[in-house]
Amino acid sequence: MANNPYIVQCGIYTMCIVQDGSRILLANRPDKLGFPGYIGPGGKVEPNERITAAAVRELWEETGLRVREEDLIFKGIDEYVVPATKYRYMVFNYLATKYEGELLQDPPEGELAWVDRNEAAGLPMQSWFKRRLPLFFEPGTFEICAVWDEETKSEIEDRVIQLG
Amino acid sequence: MANNPYIVQCGIYTMCIVQDGSRILLANRPDKLGFPGYIGPGGKVEPNERITAAAVRELWEETGLRVREEDLIFKGIDEYVVPATKYRYMVFNYLATKYEGELLQDPPEGELAWVDRNEAAGLPMQSWFKRRLPLFFEPGTFEICAVWDEETKSEIEDRVIQLG
Repeated sequence: MANNPYIVQCGIYTMCIVQDGSRILLANRPDKLGFPGYIGPGGKVEPNERITAAAVRELWEETGLRVREEDLIFKGIDEYVVPATKYRYMVFNYLATKYEGELLQDPPEGELAWVDRNEAAGLPMQSWFKRRLPLFFEPGTFEICAVWDEETKSEIEDRVIQLG
Repeated sequence: MANNPYIVQCGIYTMCIVQDGSRILLANRPDKLGFPGYIGPGGKVEPNERITAAAVRELWEETGLRVREEDLIFKGIDEYVVPATKYRYMVFNYLATKYEGELLQDPPEGELAWVDRNEAAGLPMQSWFKRRLPLFFEPGTFEICAVWDEETKSEIEDRVIQLG
């Protein structure tokens, strides 16, 4: 396997935006955790875990809300690719419009807030999340991919594609 | 990066089914190439390649047909996961209903055939493709995941989930 030139090193993550009418659930991530600002719940997929199972688990751990895997709506992939090290950072993004449970009183990744979907972009947030967020509410799915060139130390490609 | 327990070794592949009315395009893969039988066009994603770009390239190389990335419809993921070696084999599956070009006369992966979508399951094909094929024509997306247990030498989980 080590000699297969097509094997890449992947970090696989999920994000799940819960929507309740016109409001969506975001966490206000504090400075001390890095990447501060409002963001959707999510995190790493374990090496033995299905991706939708990870999305459900992370949502539960970070918010206290429960969703069924079958009720997730797949919205798209956001990737950061480094060909020089054969690395791909992949985020699988989901939308949930059905949920059960109550919000955690002391959430681990930042205070939780139901915010109006159309006003969310005005909140402090990382630029890559600001770009991704409206795509959760478009029809179909998205594929975002940035490719990092190690020689020139710059992004040689950065594409957002909306698929049918 | 090597010490990050969440980094997994990934083989990333695409498959693209072209649909033209009631017919779909499959290749009849010969014994000598392995995994014989009818199958959708596709192949490996290069380490520096976006996934949709790979789907378009493989379709062109194997069939001669051209599709635009934006015209692809994302249909789902089919994964084979081996926790013991932190390996994931991931296939990203697309449907294309718009295309240009003419079929190759001498296709590299097997003779091409437009087959009736409802009769396709009666053709000789690998069991995993037979299971996946009808899901291309269902609403939403799918996530198929089989988890291989190295200790018991058996699949400890094998799930097909249809998402909204």
